[in-house]
Amino acid sequence: MPRSKKIRIGLFGFGRTGATVAHEMINAPDSELVWVVRKSHSHAGEYASRLQGLQSDEGMIHWVGDINRAFFRQNPVDVIIDFSTSETVRLYKSAADQGTRILSAISNYSRDDLAELKKLSRKTAVLYSPNISIGVNLLLLTSLVVRNVIPQADVAILEEHFSQKPDISGTALRIAKKLKVDPATSVSSIRAGGIVGKHEVLFGLPNQTLRITHESINRAAFGRGALAGATWLMECPKGFYTMEQLLAIRFREALTQLK
Amino acid sequence: MPRSKKIRIGLFGFGRTGATVAHEMINAPDSELVWVVRKSHSHAGEYASRLQGLQSDEGMIHWVGDINRAFFRQNPVDVIIDFSTSETVRLYKSAADQGTRILSAISNYSRDDLAELKKLSRKTAVLYSPNISIGVNLLLLTSLVVRNVIPQADVAILEEHFSQKPDISGTALRIAKKLKVDPATSVSSIRAGGIVGKHEVLFGLPNQTLRITHESINRAAFGRGALAGATWLMECPKGFYTMEQLLAIRFREALTQLK
Amino acid sequence: MPRSKKIRIGLFGFGRTGATVAHEMINAPDSELVWVVRKSHSHAGEYASRLQGLQSDEGMIHWVGDINRAFFRQNPVDVIIDFSTSETVRLYKSAADQGTRILSAISNYSRDDLAELKKLSRKTAVLYSPNISIGVNLLLLTSLVVRNVIPQADVAILEEHFSQKPDISGTALRIAKKLKVDPATSVSSIRAGGIVGKHEVLFGLPNQTLRITHESINRAAFGRGALAGATWLMECPKGFYTMEQLLAIRFREALTQLK
Amino acid sequence: MPRSKKIRIGLFGFGRTGATVAHEMINAPDSELVWVVRKSHSHAGEYASRLQGLQSDEGMIHWVGDINRAFFRQNPVDVIIDFSTSETVRLYKSAADQGTRILSAISNYSRDDLAELKKLSRKTAVLYSPNISIGVNLLLLTSLVVRNVIPQADVAILEEHFSQKPDISGTALRIAKKLKVDPATSVSSIRAGGIVGKHEVLFGLPNQTLRITHESINRAAFGRGALAGATWLMECPKGFYTMEQLLAIRFREALTQLK
Repeated sequence: MPRSKKIRIGLFGFGRTGATVAHEMINAPDSELVWVVRKSHSHAGEYASRLQGLQSDEGMIHWVGDINRAFFRQNPVDVIIDFSTSETVRLYKSAADQGTRILSAISNYSRDDLAELKKLSRKTAVLYSPNISIGVNLLLLTSLVVRNVIPQADVAILEEHFSQKPDISGTALRIAKKLKVDPATSVSSIRAGGIVGKHEVLFGLPNQTLRITHESINRAAFGRGALAGATWLMECPKGFYTMEQLLAIRFREALTQLK
Repeated sequence: MPRSKKIRIGLFGFGRTGATVAHEMINAPDSELVWVVRKSHSHAGEYASRLQGLQSDEGMIHWVGDINRAFFRQNPVDVIIDFSTSETVRLYKSAADQGTRILSAISNYSRDDLAELKKLSRKTAVLYSPNISIGVNLLLLTSLVVRNVIPQADVAILEEHFSQKPDISGTALRIAKKLKVDPATSVSSIRAGGIVGKHEVLFGLPNQTLRITHESINRAAFGRGALAGATWLMECPKGFYTMEQLLAIRFREALTQLK
Repeated sequence: MPRSKKIRIGLFGFGRTGATVAHEMINAPDSELVWVVRKSHSHAGEYASRLQGLQSDEGMIHWVGDINRAFFRQNPVDVIIDFSTSETVRLYKSAADQGTRILSAISNYSRDDLAELKKLSRKTAVLYSPNISIGVNLLLLTSLVVRNVIPQADVAILEEHFSQKPDISGTALRIAKKLKVDPATSVSSIRAGGIVGKHEVLFGLPNQTLRITHESINRAAFGRGALAGATWLMECPKGFYTMEQLLAIRFREALTQLK
Repeated sequence: MPRSKKIRIGLFGFGRTGATVAHEMINAPDSELVWVVRKSHSHAGEYASRLQGLQSDEGMIHWVGDINRAFFRQNPVDVIIDFSTSETVRLYKSAADQGTRILSAISNYSRDDLAELKKLSRKTAVLYSPNISIGVNLLLLTSLVVRNVIPQADVAILEEHFSQKPDISGTALRIAKKLKVDPATSVSSIRAGGIVGKHEVLFGLPNQTLRITHESINRAAFGRGALAGATWLMECPKGFYTMEQLLAIRFREALTQLK
């Protein structure tokens, strides 16, 4: 793919996060939102861009009931981005067969649907990341590396979110799992006011501390992350990838430049 | 070297930092402080451990004027650690010739003395790190990697120190240089009260921020860093190394374990 | 005014901040947005609530050219809130004469217009606060109190904002002025990515530090602050007030409860 | 007492904290450490200043078994500072009778001993503060005031300490109690490495957060706090005081200066 060409994107999901992602895709200079598939009938046939008050025609909205093999042939894209629900993975098998790359940000896959997603990776490049923001994945990966270099350090994970968020954050749990610390003793959760989202990994040594802290400003970060993921995915051979694997490649490149 | 053997260390420098480093070396289970060389005559022939109120005999103190080729033959160590002054490098050429590893933490080398240090690396493994604390070097290296992965992010460096510290911190300048940002616009310095030392690298994206923050609790961190450096140095072939290069090897190992 | 009655509000200004403030006023259970006055003709005669996609009728929009003495008689409110421009103060003299309270959040008054605002305070209660958010004023007032209790502490002010914000923040300058420290040496400004706004006042003592930190999540904070200001203003006799004076009254009440 | 005169201090307790406090008292220009009383016989008759390597003669050391009514007559001081143990309060009743002020920093009083301390306040000014550092008390008092001004804000308390510290910090519990929040749900405790001590009170509103954060650098803060407390105590009539009450007086003074 020549660099000058925009990445053509098809989006599943047009809820609160999906709509924000669509907005980012429309505005980004290096991507074109070709279509959006949503659960509800409403606004089918209209452009997502117009619904969002923009003066362009991008992101034709389709009802999920209209999606079939023919749809993907008639509306080809480079990457399908999925911010919808677990079972949607069943819908785009034929697109994967013809090589369309898949980026899924579904956080609550059923076991079967996740298996299905993995199956698609035999035919195309699939990126799966339940939290697609670059910053959170950088937090995860740098923490992982630091953990390996100073395994003797105590690890504490702190997450802060708005007061209504019910459970311990999934991202904090994922970090705990990757760093091999017990979430029950290592994760502190603070709920207060309207905090968008903050995650901190603290490494405590006897004479110094190192903290890596990610703060979300708003959910547009998911759109940017999806776009970066899509761009990287275009360069990958078929296979199943996670965001931290793709970032790890960049980490290695960066390390190579060290003299 | 079998793992069960302690690393034998010879230390140049017994000022405020040197003494703290000596203290850490004496207390660490995997190192033995064989001797200490200091500028002044005082306490020569006594043990550094006794001077520090410890109940062991480690770190026989020698006057710098007594150091010659014979000294190194009669008092062999695995690693020479140098927390003294620029010109000291001239003293341990013969030790380097016989393969003793060198770890130098001198921050203000003259051009000639630094060239001399590099020359020693043709005969043995030499580690040079003007700030030897592990945390600061982890801050530097993770920042460097993040910078390469998200070059579009704005970079700001914040350093806080006690009110008497005169200039912008050398570590902040070094980070700015490595990240290729202009210190004049990117480094903010705060001087207040008795803050031991804090460095923060902030990456700002439109919808999220990532901060990596190092806080010093006390200068014993230098001793721990020197010890870690000495341990790593034992595994290195002859050559000239920096702390971030040695850490980069650990980073790569950590990345390899990612699945 | 019996407590059960809502505060009736008239708003000048319907730009980015004004519209956000209107939104908060409409949604708050204890206030009623009676009207909005804007510079442009557009949407005059419509409800601000409808423009914002709400299912209520609040905030009839009027063109500024239609505002005169009769308007205030026919559309009485308890408090006029001004988020528009310097010269608007000339428009609501007759409202002040009849006792309507005034809350102004104009940050760049001309000398004459500010004098005019002060003149209105002979007839009614006037609250002037260029940054009306409660949090920022709490930061200011707690810092001021701490400064008086530990005058020996070093003071540093740190402000972080999005990369496009050109100058040092007005709030930081105001804090510096109130704390009697030189902004040139005491205020550090960081510009990076999309940071909404953060202000920190650091007090450094030899053996401890105290930091008071305010972080804005979004500009709805101005609406909440204006509402709190309006509520407090309802209890004030005529006169000229600042937000920190009104907060200081609450501070004193709080201190009285200490045993 | 003319301002030019130094405050004469008698200190009970010469353990780790007591010795640090003594050190601060000796070095401070406006106080004179007259004597130190310790539990053990060792070094009785020597000067605390000499034990600490200083070139002055301050703080004659006495054994606790030698303390009686005559001792206080023969070795008069302005303020007795108590960093020892619960039952020590029984020893200085006669000193209180003759008007010597008492500052107690005992954290674990038995019910009876605390009652005894309160009884002394009928004869002299008594200051009781289990955490005497100024910063911690400023944190407590500013938090209390903010809590009263924005009672609708969510409150979270975060405390970080070195990994060996067993329980939730007493200071965090005290803050929770004063702010009337449930420690079980409001206090998060982090234990990692060698963190000296950090307490943060977070107020979360829908659109902004306010954080007040205290960080201990080392325990000399107790000495400074005791000295400030002693100075304030010199101006107080007889009665029982807490540190936050004395600070509250300064808060009110500061508020009075607001125009």
